[in-house]
Amino acid sequence: MDFSKPETVVDLNNIRNVLIRMEDTIVFNLIERAKFPRQPSIYKPGAFNISDFDGSFVEWLLREEEIVHAKIRRYESPDEIPFFPNDLPEPILPAIEYPPVLYPHPNKVNVNDTIKDFYINDIVPRICADGEQPENLGSSSLCDVECLRSLSRRIHFGRFVAEAKYLTETAHMTSLIKSKDVAGLDAAITNKAVEKQVLARLKRKAETYGIDPTLADPQPKASRVNVEAVVEMYENWVIPLTKEVEVEYLLNRLPKEEA
Amino acid sequence: MDFSKPETVVDLNNIRNVLIRMEDTIVFNLIERAKFPRQPSIYKPGAFNISDFDGSFVEWLLREEEIVHAKIRRYESPDEIPFFPNDLPEPILPAIEYPPVLYPHPNKVNVNDTIKDFYINDIVPRICADGEQPENLGSSSLCDVECLRSLSRRIHFGRFVAEAKYLTETAHMTSLIKSKDVAGLDAAITNKAVEKQVLARLKRKAETYGIDPTLADPQPKASRVNVEAVVEMYENWVIPLTKEVEVEYLLNRLPKEEA
Repeated sequence: MDFSKPETVVDLNNIRNVLIRMEDTIVFNLIERAKFPRQPSIYKPGAFNISDFDGSFVEWLLREEEIVHAKIRRYESPDEIPFFPNDLPEPILPAIEYPPVLYPHPNKVNVNDTIKDFYINDIVPRICADGEQPENLGSSSLCDVECLRSLSRRIHFGRFVAEAKYLTETAHMTSLIKSKDVAGLDAAITNKAVEKQVLARLKRKAETYGIDPTLADPQPKASRVNVEAVVEMYENWVIPLTKEVEVEYLLNRLPKEEA
Repeated sequence: MDFSKPETVVDLNNIRNVLIRMEDTIVFNLIERAKFPRQPSIYKPGAFNISDFDGSFVEWLLREEEIVHAKIRRYESPDEIPFFPNDLPEPILPAIEYPPVLYPHPNKVNVNDTIKDFYINDIVPRICADGEQPENLGSSSLCDVECLRSLSRRIHFGRFVAEAKYLTETAHMTSLIKSKDVAGLDAAITNKAVEKQVLARLKRKAETYGIDPTLADPQPKASRVNVEAVVEMYENWVIPLTKEVEVEYLLNRLPKEEA
């Protein structure tokens, strides 16, 4: 997949390969986060006295890193959606002229707040042991930032999936979009068999990467990550939110004259 | 290991477990970097027109992130050594009072320049395909930053190894240090059998994590990382540099009155 060649981005086979590869990144990131306990204070707005910032420690770190990355044009890339779109400076490098792949959406489809919410409230408590280690608040937060970014990229990739599906089934999609048939769109983009494959793959990856293969007794109980939590995160959040992104994208997909 | 309890940090068994866990992090990071081609321009000083900065794109990103992380006191932690120690701001959070574990070294033992050098010139060319993808310069640089940080933490952990060895063999070490016997110190801290174990473990980890376990044909040729390059990186760089760090630390270890 090459974002300078739109035809490679809306190729469903390429998309599938990229999504599969992202699973590994997400599993690696969760394993890294699970090294540390939950660290409740890093998610509590105002728990640290950071001047000019009302959010949590993790949010501050995420925003500061987004400010750095915006300077090197991270958020010009069509597959990157920032968590703090209103706080970002202009790039210090000349823009890359990406040819348009996606249809311009009024708000770019941004479900990052929901991602932050499920990750902090549902995933961290399941993959991390209870407790707080003051000397690892920063390290834990950095892991959170990586987890959030990789989940965001994965879920928002739904926009490319949706565009590819729109291009291959334009007539059918157009009719569903025109009648604002959300349930119909959801049904049209859902493939239960593929979803099952994704979950089976996730389970296998979390099991494999989660265990040090050189242990004398590399049994499931030695896993450094809660495999069930990883699989259920995909089942309950990543897959449904990706579809939500797809539907939201499609609802705004029709060229002005047709909408 | 808990840096607020020095006795847990100089416990050779704890150190061993931390070093083993770091291997996974390093392998994960190299696998992520290997997704992208070499991107020679990101290592070339001045290749991008970044105002007030003479270094390379990767160095700029590393420095900017260190500036953010310094604010949340990353470099107050005894196991973190920055690449740009002279460019860092004061923390915005109150200091954590770490009880001293290490003996104060005049320059804290910092081999980060050597690490940057071997990583860029020897490792990247071996784990990445030839070529440049302009739209992934930022992503590749971020992976480099993660690789460099995890390598730096691993190699500088030699200081804790050295302190632990000094505490358990004080008389022997003192005599070697007093006579500035670098070869003797190197021999005293070297355990060839353990080094062999480390390399065998690295190989197994790179083989396991490098291959998507859900592939129909998960053969070595499907590996996403050059396993030999990972093992040889430890053999040629990580292990020797860790020992260099240990020796350098020990040479400055004697209390003033004894030195």
